[in-house]
Amino acid sequence: MTLHAYGLGIGRKSSDGRWLDVFFPKPVAEPDTKVAACFDGMDRCTTLDPLDLHALGEALANAGAANDAALTSRLADCESTPVLVLLPENDAPQSVPEAYLKLHLLSHRSVKPHGTSLDGLFGLLPNVAWTGEGPIAIDELPERQLTARLKGSFVVVDSVDKFPKMSDYVVPDGVRIADTARVRLGAHIGVGTTIMHEGFVNFNAGTLGAGMIEGRVSAGVVVGANSDLGGGCSTMGTLSGGGDIVISIGERCLLGANSGLGIPLGDRCTIEAGLYLTAGTKVALHDATGALLDTVAARSLAGQSGLLFRRNSRSGTVECLTNRTAIELNKALHAHN
Amino acid sequence: MTLHAYGLGIGRKSSDGRWLDVFFPKPVAEPDTKVAACFDGMDRCTTLDPLDLHALGEALANAGAANDAALTSRLADCESTPVLVLLPENDAPQSVPEAYLKLHLLSHRSVKPHGTSLDGLFGLLPNVAWTGEGPIAIDELPERQLTARLKGSFVVVDSVDKFPKMSDYVVPDGVRIADTARVRLGAHIGVGTTIMHEGFVNFNAGTLGAGMIEGRVSAGVVVGANSDLGGGCSTMGTLSGGGDIVISIGERCLLGANSGLGIPLGDRCTIEAGLYLTAGTKVALHDATGALLDTVAARSLAGQSGLLFRRNSRSGTVECLTNRTAIELNKALHAHN
Amino acid sequence: MTLHAYGLGIGRKSSDGRWLDVFFPKPVAEPDTKVAACFDGMDRCTTLDPLDLHALGEALANAGAANDAALTSRLADCESTPVLVLLPENDAPQSVPEAYLKLHLLSHRSVKPHGTSLDGLFGLLPNVAWTGEGPIAIDELPERQLTARLKGSFVVVDSVDKFPKMSDYVVPDGVRIADTARVRLGAHIGVGTTIMHEGFVNFNAGTLGAGMIEGRVSAGVVVGANSDLGGGCSTMGTLSGGGDIVISIGERCLLGANSGLGIPLGDRCTIEAGLYLTAGTKVALHDATGALLDTVAARSLAGQSGLLFRRNSRSGTVECLTNRTAIELNKALHAHN
Repeated sequence: MTLHAYGLGIGRKSSDGRWLDVFFPKPVAEPDTKVAACFDGMDRCTTLDPLDLHALGEALANAGAANDAALTSRLADCESTPVLVLLPENDAPQSVPEAYLKLHLLSHRSVKPHGTSLDGLFGLLPNVAWTGEGPIAIDELPERQLTARLKGSFVVVDSVDKFPKMSDYVVPDGVRIADTARVRLGAHIGVGTTIMHEGFVNFNAGTLGAGMIEGRVSAGVVVGANSDLGGGCSTMGTLSGGGDIVISIGERCLLGANSGLGIPLGDRCTIEAGLYLTAGTKVALHDATGALLDTVAARSLAGQSGLLFRRNSRSGTVECLTNRTAIELNKALHAHN
Repeated sequence: MTLHAYGLGIGRKSSDGRWLDVFFPKPVAEPDTKVAACFDGMDRCTTLDPLDLHALGEALANAGAANDAALTSRLADCESTPVLVLLPENDAPQSVPEAYLKLHLLSHRSVKPHGTSLDGLFGLLPNVAWTGEGPIAIDELPERQLTARLKGSFVVVDSVDKFPKMSDYVVPDGVRIADTARVRLGAHIGVGTTIMHEGFVNFNAGTLGAGMIEGRVSAGVVVGANSDLGGGCSTMGTLSGGGDIVISIGERCLLGANSGLGIPLGDRCTIEAGLYLTAGTKVALHDATGALLDTVAARSLAGQSGLLFRRNSRSGTVECLTNRTAIELNKALHAHN
Repeated sequence: MTLHAYGLGIGRKSSDGRWLDVFFPKPVAEPDTKVAACFDGMDRCTTLDPLDLHALGEALANAGAANDAALTSRLADCESTPVLVLLPENDAPQSVPEAYLKLHLLSHRSVKPHGTSLDGLFGLLPNVAWTGEGPIAIDELPERQLTARLKGSFVVVDSVDKFPKMSDYVVPDGVRIADTARVRLGAHIGVGTTIMHEGFVNFNAGTLGAGMIEGRVSAGVVVGANSDLGGGCSTMGTLSGGGDIVISIGERCLLGANSGLGIPLGDRCTIEAGLYLTAGTKVALHDATGALLDTVAARSLAGQSGLLFRRNSRSGTVECLTNRTAIELNKALHAHN
């Protein structure tokens, strides 16, 4: 038996039984077949009672999954709802627990962005009030707020959103996130990445290695190792202005502060601080000698490496400088078309 | 008897009796005269003891205000200070409870931005430390912080401001607010509005319907239905650079990421990502045929619909494209002057 | 005996004894020699037991340091770790408590930015999870999160960073900070400064007097009194793109919304909204008559007063306007070289 992934989690529900969230301390992608066999015949989503957990714990221990076996015994003491989610294959999530498992897989770096299907995710996820007391159903919030105030207390509502913040579920090793409100569960933050206060990372997006993120990584955008996104820079996502083009940024790129990006970049590219490069920006392309080769739409430079984009401060013209010759550049452009 | 508004609330005070805030679970604008008559002869602001609440509850029940009658009986059990605020007419707030009632009216959508006088609001509102334990007077904070630390505890101070965040007082239906720290009480968030992490809405400002807000809606700025403010975009407020001009944005507009706006827009306008349009920006105005009609200051285009603003990436010129003819444009400009 | 500074604080440690943070309610810079003599012969960092505190309290009372004497008696009841830190001279911090004392000195306005050595600070400070329950060691966080969830509770992780937010340690008098997540301990916030939601101030940086900060004050950047940093504006720090140049901003300057700054400014300078001025930007310099004097790199205008920078919206040229004559400007430029 094979599985795309599975997870043992702790779920919360509203008073009338709707799922609010599920926390998976140790989600597992692509388990070995011996472990997967422990779940043979089980549903995609099962709430577990202590007997279930005991049986499952023995099976997992026998299959060599000591961590998960230990987790089952702790879940037997859980005051919320223990839940097991199985994803037989990489298909669209079908329930809130499945959606949460997929978001956990991304943030635990068990899959890379675009590595698990999130089709229909928005429709599944409930909009929830994320508070100092945990998730609260939106329709139950006013009563909770009133009750707290009557007692001289206070419900702090940090977010009202379909996605919780990642750090309340997992902080992967080797990262700094100065303001965790700006990284959604489902972000993939590489080892060695620092996300400063102005940085932001949406779900199904993030960094593959080290990086300094002081700008906004939109949904679906992936940033290669050792790139630097300057303060307030913008990347267009498929959900936010980029249309069909999936933006990506290669390795050792620099997006200047307050710049913007509407095309995929290769490696070692630079966008000058303050320049917003959209797919339709007309760019004067200069070769290594400084000669003007052509004026092209930025989209035709998508994926190229070693480009420097700037706005000429005397003429106002957007320029692209490369360290390649005119002949190489012509080839690259035609290869891309 | 008529009233602009009234509210039954729960207030907090500093140790020496200064108001810190008031929470109104169900503020009411323009109550019918029968309900308003329940308050006949009362002061604008009254702290209520259990006897007052009982009498008021009976009167409200008789006047058909069942919700408020129920609220009075709950307030009788309140560990903070129950308070009744009456606003006989739409005049300047005269006390902290009145100021809070007006901010609640806006966020409950009981009045639209600019729908209730906020004259002198800044002078009334105390600067408060907003913490995980609720509001604390600034001058009492150091002792509270020291006491907590001595016990191995920790006072989390989320904000030091005259305005609390809206979501700790009300989350209106049909909204998402990814980072609630960025929406002040007094914001008016329309049904169907999503405010992403980089979005911001000040008091007496907001959206009238659905919208996607990833930029900054300054104090006083109103956004029509189905408009989209891109990540990091800026709107000039009367408190933040816009001077006397009150900025507004019509329906179905798009402000690109990292763009900026210093004039009111009509409907179906677009500002290209990265372009900051101030009132003084000189704009080359092109008609539907692409012909250059005139170069005008952006302020002379205030309130017009169907405009597209961009910076020509070859010449650096700021341009305005329309789908109207030169004759129509000339008329529109003169009509505006 | 003289001291650069000292502080009596309350520290927290991880389960295995690593420092997480130290809170100094009243750090003291440059104490008088009589007070400093109380610490004669003591180590730079001492954890204090009740006997130590009693002896120290008597000595401090005799030296006239009544505040600190009172603090020692309260620390005797502390459930965390009381600690005394001495900085004999202004040298590099050598331990976590020393680093925290220096950051406190800045935020208490006991020293100005660049007024105390922070050499090696990053290497000293541990990366910590800042939660609603206080600081938690990163490697202990997963167990804490799991334990809380099993009990139906929730650890809110606000930040994962080497620096905590300032307001959880000190809120200096006369400031507003709308979103405290955006001001690090070690920031220096002048009396009369308001930091709006989009504002940000890093450590060893800040304002010297009143100001309106809606943009980002990078590490090392100092802003003079009565300057206004518009929403989303960017200042390049030595840690964030500015290289060796230390950016500063004089008095009564205005950085427009979404603008950027890569050179030091004198007094009364303006950068137009949306213009990013880097050190290398070529600037057309106009004198008081409007005549074009020269085109120079922005870095050659560093530190000059009374300059207005804008991008000409017709030509795309970056311009600098001054109210000085060509002769004065030439002198100023040469003086600067």
